[in-house]
Amino acid sequence: MAATRLCFGCCGRRGEEPRPPEEMTLLGEGSHEEEEHLPRKDYESLDYDCCFNEPYIHMLEKQDSRTSSRNEAVRWVVTLFVGIFTGLVALFIDVVIKELMGLKVGIVKNCIELLSVKGYLVLSLLVLLAFNLTFTFISGLFTAAEPLAAGSGIPEVKCYLNGVKVPRVVRLFTLVCKAVGVLFSVAGGLLVGKEGPMIHSGAVIGAGVPQFQSFTFKKIKFDFPYFRSDRDKRDFASSGAAAGVAAAFGAPIGGVLFSLEEGSSFWNQMLTWRTFLCSMTAAFTLNFFLSGTRIEGENPDADSSAWGSFYQPGLLTFGQFKCPEGERGCQLWTVLDLFVFIVMGIVGGLLGALFNAINTRLTKHRMKHVHNRHPAIRVLEVLLVTMVTTIVAFTAAMTLGECKEVAPIVINVTSPVEQTVQYFFCPNGTYNDMATLFFNTQETSIRQLFHQEATFSLQSLGIFFLLFFCLSCWTYGTSVPSGLFVPSLLCGAAYGRFVGNLLKMLPGFEHIYSGTFSLIGAAAFLGGVVRMTISLTVILIESTNEISYGLPIMIVLMVAKFTGDLFNHGLYDIHIELKGVPLLEWHPPHGMDRLCASDIMETSLSYIYPHTRIQSLVSILRTTRHHAYPVVTENHDSMVERRARAKANTMVSNNIKFRNENSLTRANEQMRRIMSRRSAEIKILEDQEQRSRSGSMDSRNAEEDINFTLMTSSVELYRGLSPTAEDHGFGEKFKPLTFHGLILRHQLISLLSRGVCYAENTPSSCQPTLTYEELTEDYPRWLDIHDVDLTQLHPRMIMDVTPYMNPCPYTVSPNTPVPQVFKLFRTMGLRHLPVTNDMGEIVGIVTRHNLTTENLKQKLKDSQHLA
Amino acid sequence: MAATRLCFGCCGRRGEEPRPPEEMTLLGEGSHEEEEHLPRKDYESLDYDCCFNEPYIHMLEKQDSRTSSRNEAVRWVVTLFVGIFTGLVALFIDVVIKELMGLKVGIVKNCIELLSVKGYLVLSLLVLLAFNLTFTFISGLFTAAEPLAAGSGIPEVKCYLNGVKVPRVVRLFTLVCKAVGVLFSVAGGLLVGKEGPMIHSGAVIGAGVPQFQSFTFKKIKFDFPYFRSDRDKRDFASSGAAAGVAAAFGAPIGGVLFSLEEGSSFWNQMLTWRTFLCSMTAAFTLNFFLSGTRIEGENPDADSSAWGSFYQPGLLTFGQFKCPEGERGCQLWTVLDLFVFIVMGIVGGLLGALFNAINTRLTKHRMKHVHNRHPAIRVLEVLLVTMVTTIVAFTAAMTLGECKEVAPIVINVTSPVEQTVQYFFCPNGTYNDMATLFFNTQETSIRQLFHQEATFSLQSLGIFFLLFFCLSCWTYGTSVPSGLFVPSLLCGAAYGRFVGNLLKMLPGFEHIYSGTFSLIGAAAFLGGVVRMTISLTVILIESTNEISYGLPIMIVLMVAKFTGDLFNHGLYDIHIELKGVPLLEWHPPHGMDRLCASDIMETSLSYIYPHTRIQSLVSILRTTRHHAYPVVTENHDSMVERRARAKANTMVSNNIKFRNENSLTRANEQMRRIMSRRSAEIKILEDQEQRSRSGSMDSRNAEEDINFTLMTSSVELYRGLSPTAEDHGFGEKFKPLTFHGLILRHQLISLLSRGVCYAENTPSSCQPTLTYEELTEDYPRWLDIHDVDLTQLHPRMIMDVTPYMNPCPYTVSPNTPVPQVFKLFRTMGLRHLPVTNDMGEIVGIVTRHNLTTENLKQKLKDSQHLA
Repeated sequence: MAATRLCFGCCGRRGEEPRPPEEMTLLGEGSHEEEEHLPRKDYESLDYDCCFNEPYIHMLEKQDSRTSSRNEAVRWVVTLFVGIFTGLVALFIDVVIKELMGLKVGIVKNCIELLSVKGYLVLSLLVLLAFNLTFTFISGLFTAAEPLAAGSGIPEVKCYLNGVKVPRVVRLFTLVCKAVGVLFSVAGGLLVGKEGPMIHSGAVIGAGVPQFQSFTFKKIKFDFPYFRSDRDKRDFASSGAAAGVAAAFGAPIGGVLFSLEEGSSFWNQMLTWRTFLCSMTAAFTLNFFLSGTRIEGENPDADSSAWGSFYQPGLLTFGQFKCPEGERGCQLWTVLDLFVFIVMGIVGGLLGALFNAINTRLTKHRMKHVHNRHPAIRVLEVLLVTMVTTIVAFTAAMTLGECKEVAPIVINVTSPVEQTVQYFFCPNGTYNDMATLFFNTQETSIRQLFHQEATFSLQSLGIFFLLFFCLSCWTYGTSVPSGLFVPSLLCGAAYGRFVGNLLKMLPGFEHIYSGTFSLIGAAAFLGGVVRMTISLTVILIESTNEISYGLPIMIVLMVAKFTGDLFNHGLYDIHIELKGVPLLEWHPPHGMDRLCASDIMETSLSYIYPHTRIQSLVSILRTTRHHAYPVVTENHDSMVERRARAKANTMVSNNIKFRNENSLTRANEQMRRIMSRRSAEIKILEDQEQRSRSGSMDSRNAEEDINFTLMTSSVELYRGLSPTAEDHGFGEKFKPLTFHGLILRHQLISLLSRGVCYAENTPSSCQPTLTYEELTEDYPRWLDIHDVDLTQLHPRMIMDVTPYMNPCPYTVSPNTPVPQVFKLFRTMGLRHLPVTNDMGEIVGIVTRHNLTTENLKQKLKDSQHLA
Repeated sequence: MAATRLCFGCCGRRGEEPRPPEEMTLLGEGSHEEEEHLPRKDYESLDYDCCFNEPYIHMLEKQDSRTSSRNEAVRWVVTLFVGIFTGLVALFIDVVIKELMGLKVGIVKNCIELLSVKGYLVLSLLVLLAFNLTFTFISGLFTAAEPLAAGSGIPEVKCYLNGVKVPRVVRLFTLVCKAVGVLFSVAGGLLVGKEGPMIHSGAVIGAGVPQFQSFTFKKIKFDFPYFRSDRDKRDFASSGAAAGVAAAFGAPIGGVLFSLEEGSSFWNQMLTWRTFLCSMTAAFTLNFFLSGTRIEGENPDADSSAWGSFYQPGLLTFGQFKCPEGERGCQLWTVLDLFVFIVMGIVGGLLGALFNAINTRLTKHRMKHVHNRHPAIRVLEVLLVTMVTTIVAFTAAMTLGECKEVAPIVINVTSPVEQTVQYFFCPNGTYNDMATLFFNTQETSIRQLFHQEATFSLQSLGIFFLLFFCLSCWTYGTSVPSGLFVPSLLCGAAYGRFVGNLLKMLPGFEHIYSGTFSLIGAAAFLGGVVRMTISLTVILIESTNEISYGLPIMIVLMVAKFTGDLFNHGLYDIHIELKGVPLLEWHPPHGMDRLCASDIMETSLSYIYPHTRIQSLVSILRTTRHHAYPVVTENHDSMVERRARAKANTMVSNNIKFRNENSLTRANEQMRRIMSRRSAEIKILEDQEQRSRSGSMDSRNAEEDINFTLMTSSVELYRGLSPTAEDHGFGEKFKPLTFHGLILRHQLISLLSRGVCYAENTPSSCQPTLTYEELTEDYPRWLDIHDVDLTQLHPRMIMDVTPYMNPCPYTVSPNTPVPQVFKLFRTMGLRHLPVTNDMGEIVGIVTRHNLTTENLKQKLKDSQHLA
């Protein structure tokens, strides 16, 4: 079974571009339902730890303080540009959406006004439908071109910052599809927001700009290879994501907290400064252009549209909360309201949990029946959603609204809130409340609910909430770029305003400020849906620009989160789980102190020796799919001696438990290697057949490879080399393996492809040395072993891997409790954590896949079953 | 030499309370000037890592999910109370200071008005002096009672959160002295702030409340031992510090960031939530009471002093920045102003560096000539500072001020800024600008500079800045509780206003808003002095309650920090350095990748075996001052074998460098132990003499102790025990030591004092077992080995330490580069990091002292010297 999976993996890689994992997840017709949620093993991890091998040390030593300050300066300048670009992309998205909406609404409104006289409302609906369907069709096309552009993008950014390599998530092409797609999905009248995609765009810009190269556009390639490592890329991407948040919500501090919370578990002072600079730059770039190009009269607080001033803190502003001038005794909120807020938080959490449960069902259904079909099916689904949304919204606005009086304007300046009400079919001095909610941009509707003093009718608010809840729940997850933030806020604001209006009818509550309840409702529902924690709180506080809302917003978000967590996870996390991404949570699940590293580690390892023949290296690389290989030497004391020693140790200390584990492990390993070699032989033969059929160019090389892979077993080769290898036959005694370091698959392949090896009869110092730049040249698209041209290398040459391995990875002992292991792994952003016993012998490796919640729970169940 | 130091340490501990380290630092008359800055070794570290020994595991296993949820709930409730208490303490400080100031100013003003007619101004000065001297005398007395109460407290909190055990820093007595002292130092007219002490108070409350016990007040002792560990205490203290920031500045988010930045390098989601709750609670507790008890008319925005409303976000509010209603074309700031801000930031950084340089000189002088004398000298110094400050301020206000016109009041409501101007000797409609600055509370003066539209004269601003700069620089570091924040802000605001007024005279700058320049000046100077980074930025943004100042404040703070860093460190850091606290910086200094763990580690270790006789344990504990002992067993292969093995390894891999290091180490260790035993014998004899003279109760015990310590050498004892110990004589061959775990000094002493051991002829399972509660009972004041009653224990009994040691500390290999070691140590909050070679043998231990910047730089110099 292992062989067939390996084979698939290898074959898949050879031919076309491998299929994206999210497609591979989609299971058949429910044949093994229970496995649906298990994290999949084909996601690679990113490596945030430094590998202090010799090329890296040499590179560091070569850097005098001038070079390193120059690099540091470049880092800051690049960060600045990431901020500026992110701000510009956000500006582009915002401006184009406004233009498209303006075009659409203008024509449709004219149409309605023209036709309503004659009563042909259906015609107006058709015009609207034509617009919306065209727009969402375009959006759907872009998403079909790049499936990763679908959805809000926050789950993908979360995964990336958590350390999972989601393929294609930070490519330029993804950015283009996402940014253009979201224009048309929002303008197309779908109940989606543009904020999530902006955050994703920021992350892509952050990850992309400092690379100074692009694979999509081959011409973009500068010779500046300094930031081409997972660690640097992660740092820039987190700055970019922060900039995205800052631009989308006008919340630079919230942005920094977002990226800190999701990304860097270790607080790095300079990185935080850079992130802060980046998010401030993005927010103020946007602010600068918006203030400069502002349409006259849109913001009455300022008197002229002056370039160089800063009036628009962000795209999502909630306006100023203040009591109407005339009313004495009105307060934004009092301490008694807090109790109402807590109840609202609980209800918000419940509503959010319901939203998530329905959406989970829908998404599973979609994964089975929509996503694994032809892309056209997805586009059709999008069109269906658009049609229903448009018809429902139009009908509701036309038929279910009530005519309400426009609030008397107290001050001489017209408040912007009053300018955006819709008057459809209402007598003079009144407006249509349902149409006001449905026929504005969502941001405007939110501001209406927050600040419109003329009240909405209870009935309209209730119907609006219900319709919006169902439609937005259905929409999230279709194949268009779709933010979740603003729809949730709007839905929650309707709920909050509903509660506020209800309360105003009670005695003693006449003076409450309904805007506050609206805001709290929005926070409660959003908190119930996404459960985003600190950064969310700060984003909301910053968006309201009113520090005194801090306490209620925080309490409501906490209550909503705790209530919701009783039922399910946040919607972003649910979508990550459904994709099978091995995300590392904050903490290991409860009860994990009963397990230790040896219970969860991967024991089937493939080892290499410090000096290895090319042929065995190639064989190991082709027959295994590991991403790292421990470099080991064999210990020299015989088994008998070891037993005596272990016994003696037991006499001295009968409480030290962890003694003989590794001999078992070693036996396993040898057995496994024999098995794997056999299956590999079969596999290679199959491979050969397939290749000769496909008649590819490199079939000659491949044949040669196979020949030398099959020629000798790698262990036999070692007889001559290792002076004491004679005293035991292969597979009879299992020697303990002293651990020296870890080498990554891609490092080995880079070494092979550059011919780093020496002939049998020369000293190892004859081996050519690679610089750090050469080693990282292929980043981030490492070569596959099958793509390497091995004709130049004699199979019996030897490679000395010691200069290139990581000589000092963090290690843990086999009896380290899992919480300890988890903490080290997550905090340090590790990819492989070798487990060594107290003789310095390697007994296993812990990877991300061993530490996912699902896997840990499974292991705990197994161990309890045994006990 | 080592022996005498040891002796001093032990003797010091036996008699009275040991002298506080800050007193011990104070050197004589400059005999060894260059050692002044080296971090001192007598600071202990806190241990934030979990010790997964058997009692802890048992404790965890006993906890079912109900107990653990109950504990979690208690944790939240306690956090809530920490927030409330911190808010109340801040309220107390604020209210009492206001009352004292009101009393003082009222009487003095009356006096001036009465006497000015007759011209006897000197009498008024004398009245003022009498008040001020009395107040500061009281403050000085409290500080003399607890020297740690002096200063701002932020350095101490920083050290504590960084992981250094500064003695008495989180005690209730310190809190009382600090909170009462700051009342009188601020009311006494000294140029100090109350914000730093509030943060310290918060940290003490956070560290103290969850302990449910007090050593100062013995009666406070509840049976709730769950949070009695360094880790939990740190977590609560960081929440408390955040609450302090939140209360002092009305900046809950800034508070969270402060505690994150200083304290928890690892972002723990639940801890962050708790911290957030705590700081919000503190801010709103304060807000609630301030709003409720608000004096009528103080805040004209609200109309009644209503309990239950929230109008006062914090103690330090900057008021609302807005353009005067009448003026068109005024903007808070434009993009062109940014360039001015950058220049202001540079100048602010330079001024701050100058301030720090002068204060450093002063502090060194003070340490030599004031602090190591009788406490009365310190109080006298305080009185001197008070006298000079009072006379200078009074004289300046009376003679140097200019009469300026009060701004025409545009709106019908009187702005609070206009109410606080001082009219001394000025004709009607005008006010005395210098008196306005000097005769208000500092917070009011700041608001004056920010918002007073009637301008201050350039001359007054300049003189005020100069006087204030010198006086506050002289004041910081005297023996009173003294915050640095508000004086720096005020000083900077004067500088900023000066620049603003200057600019207004230039063509093209007529329309600038001088409040902005004032704010930017304040930020620049504060940033130049304290260099506090992200949290500072957020605190300022929150205090202004105006998000659009985000970008300029951030840029100015960054520029000021970078400029200042060219010359010296932030003032808090300077004071930490002067105290010799081994603080771990963010990053190791540049070039550290050339060193590896084996270059910096401590190699002179004392080992213990898993099963050790009581007498050798006691002897080791008495003759060494280590805080941790590695638990080791000896390896069994002879030296010859090891050589062969090493050679073979070299043949296989000539690039693996780290082979034979530990035999050298081991030799050192054995030599050292012999030396130490000899000196210890002398020491114990001296000790005996001293004790018999003092005629203490326990002299009989002590004698017995000494007898069995001297009876046999610990190594001889091991002959019978270890089955292979016979084949080598002591000191001839040095066996490699396999590392099994680490046991702390206080754990060993707890075990000894509770008689955990078994007789020679019984199995080790007869040893009594201790629970987790018993092990941690003495926290945080562990017993000293000399205080343990050992009469119950037969010296030849054996202790099995394996259940109590930490069996799986993080380890590193000897060739791990220092940056890697540093990252692990700092991020994980470690106390001891064992260094083991790839045979699993311990070769050294890295502690905080090995990783301080000074030590690392020294080691680098040494290694370059050798090369």
